[in-house]
Amino acid sequence: MSKKVVIVGGVAGGASAAARLRRLDEEAHIVMFERGEYISYANCGLPYYVGGVIRDRKKLLVQTPEAMRRRFNIDVRTLSEVVRILPGEKEVEVKNLATGEAYRESYDYLVLSPGASPVVPDIPGANLENVFTIRNVPDSDAIKAHIETRKPSTAVVVGGGFIGLEMAEVLMACGTKVTLVEADTQVMRALDPEMAAIVHCYLRDNGVDLRLGDKLVSIKGSSGVEEVELASGKTLPAELVILGIGVRPEVWLAKEAGLEIGPTGGILVDEYLRTSDPFIYAIGDAIQVKDYVTGQDVLIPLAGPANRQGRLVADTIAGQPTPYKGSQGTAIVKIMDMVVAVTGSNEKTLNRLGREHLACHTHPAPHATYYPGGTPMAMKLIFSPGDGKVLGAQIVGYEGVDKRIDVLATAIRAGMTVFDLQDLQLAYAPPFSSAKDPVNMIGYVAGNMVQGNVEIAHWHEVDKRLAQGALLLDVRTKREVEDGAVPGALNIPVDNLRERLSELPKDKEILVYCQVGLRSYIAYRILRQHGFTAKSISGGYRTYHMVGKDKACFESGNA
Amino acid sequence: MSKKVVIVGGVAGGASAAARLRRLDEEAHIVMFERGEYISYANCGLPYYVGGVIRDRKKLLVQTPEAMRRRFNIDVRTLSEVVRILPGEKEVEVKNLATGEAYRESYDYLVLSPGASPVVPDIPGANLENVFTIRNVPDSDAIKAHIETRKPSTAVVVGGGFIGLEMAEVLMACGTKVTLVEADTQVMRALDPEMAAIVHCYLRDNGVDLRLGDKLVSIKGSSGVEEVELASGKTLPAELVILGIGVRPEVWLAKEAGLEIGPTGGILVDEYLRTSDPFIYAIGDAIQVKDYVTGQDVLIPLAGPANRQGRLVADTIAGQPTPYKGSQGTAIVKIMDMVVAVTGSNEKTLNRLGREHLACHTHPAPHATYYPGGTPMAMKLIFSPGDGKVLGAQIVGYEGVDKRIDVLATAIRAGMTVFDLQDLQLAYAPPFSSAKDPVNMIGYVAGNMVQGNVEIAHWHEVDKRLAQGALLLDVRTKREVEDGAVPGALNIPVDNLRERLSELPKDKEILVYCQVGLRSYIAYRILRQHGFTAKSISGGYRTYHMVGKDKACFESGNA
Ligand SMILES: Cc1cc2nc3c(=O)[nH]c(=O)nc-3n(C[C@H](O)[C@H](O)[C@H](O)COP(=O)(O)OP(=O)(O)OC[C@H]3O[C@@H](n4cnc5c(N)ncnc54)[C@H](O)[C@@H]3O)c2cc1C
Ligand SMILES: Cc1cc2nc3c(=O)[nH]c(=O)nc-3n(C[C@H](O)[C@H](O)[C@H](O)COP(=O)(O)OP(=O)(O)OC[C@H]3O[C@@H](n4cnc5c(N)ncnc54)[C@H](O)[C@@H]3O)c2cc1C
Ligand SMILES: CC(C)(COP(=O)(O)OP(=O)(O)OC[C@H]1O[C@@H](n2cnc3c(N)ncnc32)[C@H](O)[C@@H]1OP(=O)(O)O)[C@@H](O)C(=O)NCCC(=O)NCCS
Ligand SMILES: CC(C)(COP(=O)(O)OP(=O)(O)OC[C@H]1O[C@@H](n2cnc3c(N)ncnc32)[C@H](O)[C@@H]1OP(=O)(O)O)[C@@H](O)C(=O)NCCC(=O)NCCS
Repeated sequence: MSKKVVIVGGVAGGASAAARLRRLDEEAHIVMFERGEYISYANCGLPYYVGGVIRDRKKLLVQTPEAMRRRFNIDVRTLSEVVRILPGEKEVEVKNLATGEAYRESYDYLVLSPGASPVVPDIPGANLENVFTIRNVPDSDAIKAHIETRKPSTAVVVGGGFIGLEMAEVLMACGTKVTLVEADTQVMRALDPEMAAIVHCYLRDNGVDLRLGDKLVSIKGSSGVEEVELASGKTLPAELVILGIGVRPEVWLAKEAGLEIGPTGGILVDEYLRTSDPFIYAIGDAIQVKDYVTGQDVLIPLAGPANRQGRLVADTIAGQPTPYKGSQGTAIVKIMDMVVAVTGSNEKTLNRLGREHLACHTHPAPHATYYPGGTPMAMKLIFSPGDGKVLGAQIVGYEGVDKRIDVLATAIRAGMTVFDLQDLQLAYAPPFSSAKDPVNMIGYVAGNMVQGNVEIAHWHEVDKRLAQGALLLDVRTKREVEDGAVPGALNIPVDNLRERLSELPKDKEILVYCQVGLRSYIAYRILRQHGFTAKSISGGYRTYHMVGKDKACFESGNA
Repeated sequence: MSKKVVIVGGVAGGASAAARLRRLDEEAHIVMFERGEYISYANCGLPYYVGGVIRDRKKLLVQTPEAMRRRFNIDVRTLSEVVRILPGEKEVEVKNLATGEAYRESYDYLVLSPGASPVVPDIPGANLENVFTIRNVPDSDAIKAHIETRKPSTAVVVGGGFIGLEMAEVLMACGTKVTLVEADTQVMRALDPEMAAIVHCYLRDNGVDLRLGDKLVSIKGSSGVEEVELASGKTLPAELVILGIGVRPEVWLAKEAGLEIGPTGGILVDEYLRTSDPFIYAIGDAIQVKDYVTGQDVLIPLAGPANRQGRLVADTIAGQPTPYKGSQGTAIVKIMDMVVAVTGSNEKTLNRLGREHLACHTHPAPHATYYPGGTPMAMKLIFSPGDGKVLGAQIVGYEGVDKRIDVLATAIRAGMTVFDLQDLQLAYAPPFSSAKDPVNMIGYVAGNMVQGNVEIAHWHEVDKRLAQGALLLDVRTKREVEDGAVPGALNIPVDNLRERLSELPKDKEILVYCQVGLRSYIAYRILRQHGFTAKSISGGYRTYHMVGKDKACFESGNA
């Protein structure tokens, strides 16, 4: 007898489950409920549609109900909200939003893929006319219409996550003056602060008015927004407000049905994506997943995992059970020309969990430096001290960022160590990479730390160590020093170091830095072998200086 | 007591060994001999320097002897050829090419990194004035000078490997009419033929006169070249000839010293890169390595491995022995806008070795199709039938090719299976990828084959199967069929298949195809579950058609 499978939600997770299930099982009766008008829409494309980069609205609709019916023989019902699950009866109650009519539909298996809803803060004015969140096609239609008809000259984007940053870019491109308000002291929570500093400087340089560490407390206006007020007391004019402060798993349906909710607020599922009811599965943004690196319970609302889980749940229901192996949070965002990408764990998380780890920074060019083009990126690698296992990576740059984060994401998936990164044989010709790709190179840098070939001081340790009496040594050329250096540093270019060792003390710690960390590492090697006590500053002047610049802006109130 | 290490060859392998050794050992006496005038030059940049893409000649010189001396305290001796090794005495005999003087230098350890020399065929005219090979800076100076002063209107490039292709591009960009002669029936030996077909069509479309399966037999002219003659009897006018028919490990020095040479003609080394003499190491293009995938002895002359081996040999000599784990031949070449990349084994090799394997083809877009830009690429994955272990990959396309080959190269290194590819969490936002990255997707396609969810017919099996009575079914739309189809195919669009099943025979094999293989796979699933016997054509019409188009050109003599 054929199975009847009911799916709630017809987009990334739900539609993927439906399509795969049909391919595996011609006989199954598959009903897919979607409360909106559209299924299978490109959520991730919505900001680009608002901004006009995607011109053709139809392109957002990857599948239509009619096409899903014809190709996959799916019983697609749009404008149909599932309002109740009756696990005992194995039925759902459905409300036809067009007619108001309610009815029940039975299931053998139920798959929940209801997604996550944008958080709307409980503050005055949050419901004013020009305050938007962006989740689906109608949301983006509304924002687009607003921009086109009202041509707002000022906008406030609240939240510095990837949706907030994409919307900031989009609005800037429309000629709107954008203020980005973020309660945290940094944008892109997945980044560690010194990496976020680079993004901050880039945003400011490109005309975004960045308000970090400040919070929206009220939105004011008569019919539409006119201004917003921040916790600091500052007010900002705004003809448009975008709320991008995050999403919350949409779990009310599951909760009312008595399904277990995890401590993070997402639906609890086992590795086969089964909820606490054996006939009900849940996938996508609504569920709690295991962090692949730390093993912690987390919420990771991304399209890749949702699509993957949709396929897996279909396999399992069709009798080929396949587990979901956890989320590693690989993510990327384009901000004008800048690209920011992350995978695995960051230091903030590992510190919070008390997990021992090391980190290093490099600033490689995306391809051979003798080949034209290619702006250097900033890379950070996080890894275990003992075995050198790769735990996480962050990259901020331009060209070639997406490639390196994907290689590192693959390495993390494979459980590789920093020594394995050294062994990777990546594709090299001058337009694409260097004979030692940036990933190999950061493997070398990290490997030296694990093996004790170098000792590192991080940007945040420098001031403390100096206060404790360390000597600061700048091994760059005189020319570079003139362009900017850490005050009080002694300058001995690395190429003169051997002959000038007598100028250095043997009874003090010497903190060595150069522009990015390469020459200071070479200097470290020379110093140590000559009996000095040294540390090389990770990421060099570039990292140290960027953090300082960002901090100065922040403190001067221009933050 | 400090070690004395003598290095022969001052470029990719040699200079890397020298620099790393110094970092590990301040005390070692390191002498680096280079017979040329320059060390540490960017071999891989030479074609781009000839073509003027790299304008500043100084950029080719990554390090100078003087800089290596200052920074690394290396005793660099250029214009100094090592002409003999005396393993018994642990000495080398050196000839100073500037003065003609010869002398001996002792060593504790000797490192050979002499590279490989371009093959020059033993044919009449090979030594004429305008016949060039390209290995080092003076070679590229000579070609550049020739182009600039003589402005050749016609050139023949012999050899369709990556150097030949790069030189063809460079010459075309200089306005020269280029004929590319290749004895094999395809360019880029690392590609399988159906993938090379795409490159052939691109080269022809861009004005390269491609002569496949033909061989240079003589070069004619009085002082300089005037024309070349091919084995077919055809003659071609040529004011310039570039020989890019491959390189041969430069082993005469090793051979004369009695060091063992492997069956491939490269210097035999163990996994610690030690030759048959325990005090002599060899690295780079001159050595024989193990193929990482097949375990065979091979020659893989690439910069990444040479650099890696240079560092490893230094580690070993400095007392941190670290093995070299084999070469997987990851390589990439840019040809105008096209990018061709490979990693691991191809089908030709596996067939030759009699190793069982499967292969599949996809044609994914480099990023979300609803985001502007992005030409589809052609991907091929080769994998084990049993466990699905990834054995090799080939990609021909434009944007995003380098990223996917690197991810796949990493996956191969990690010993991943096609199922692991499905689980990869790669960075997705619309400008960079799709929610299912092309690597995930080809993992799905391959996984379906391994798990028996689909049966595949390859491009080269189609005609045979048709002759055996199979029925050909085209499941594309009528519009697509009108744009070109395989003659004799029955057309039933996939979206009408379920209602038209009665038109199909149950007693015949049905070969299903669509444009790229996706819809034919869906059709296959429908057919099989309704009791039909079917096979889906891998890569669809696109692969099949491209091979046919290439073959037609080849056979019509325009090859
Ligand atoms: C603006 C934007 C940009 C994004 N950009 C990216 C990006 O670049 N990269 C990335 O990885 N991810 C991105 N995401 C996240 C990604 O879209 C989600 O992770 C993914 O869509 C989650 O899939 P899902 O199936 O869980 O939920 P969704 O795709 O949101 O689908 C849930 C559907 O269920 C429907 N539904 C909910 N409850 C019911 C009910 N009771 N009855 C009927 N229907 C119901 C909803 O209407 C909704 O259509 C973006 C999201 C947004 C909003
Ligand atoms: C035009 C060109 C383009 C290339 N493009 C790429 C590319 O895009 N990607 C890639 O991965 N690889 C590329 N390569 C290959 C890459 O350059 C080599 O794999 C790499 O340089 C090999 O390093 P090696 O140290 O073994 O030899 P080399 O770098 O060639 O160095 C050997 C040196 O040893 C010297 N020498 C030899 N014998 C003696 C002796 N007896 N005494 C003193 N000195 C001696 C030679 O003069 C030479 O300078 C390219 C090569 C060329 C020529
Ligand atoms: C489109 C959608 C309905 C899923 O449909 P789908 O059929 O599973 O996905 P695709 O069209 O990508 O096709 C994938 C299938 O085709 C197969 N396939 C893809 N290319 C192929 C090729 N060249 N040859 C053979 N098979 C191929 C894959 O193996 C896979 O089948 P499988 O899962 O049975 O292994 C769903 O993903 C969706 O709604 N997406 C839009 C919403 C969304 O994802 N939003 C978030 C991101 S913006
Ligand atoms: C340049 C050349 C002399 C090698 O020198 P090298 O010092 O080993 O290489 P690099 O300058 O890339 O530096 C690498 C070292 O710096 C370290 N390093 C790089 N970036 C760093 C950073 N940001 N922080 C700390 N250390 C860093 C690496 O760990 C590595 O040191 P290690 O090997 O001791 O671990 C040699 O590769 C060469 O001659 N290249 C040109 C020729 C060539 O390769 N041709 C073929 C390709 S065109």
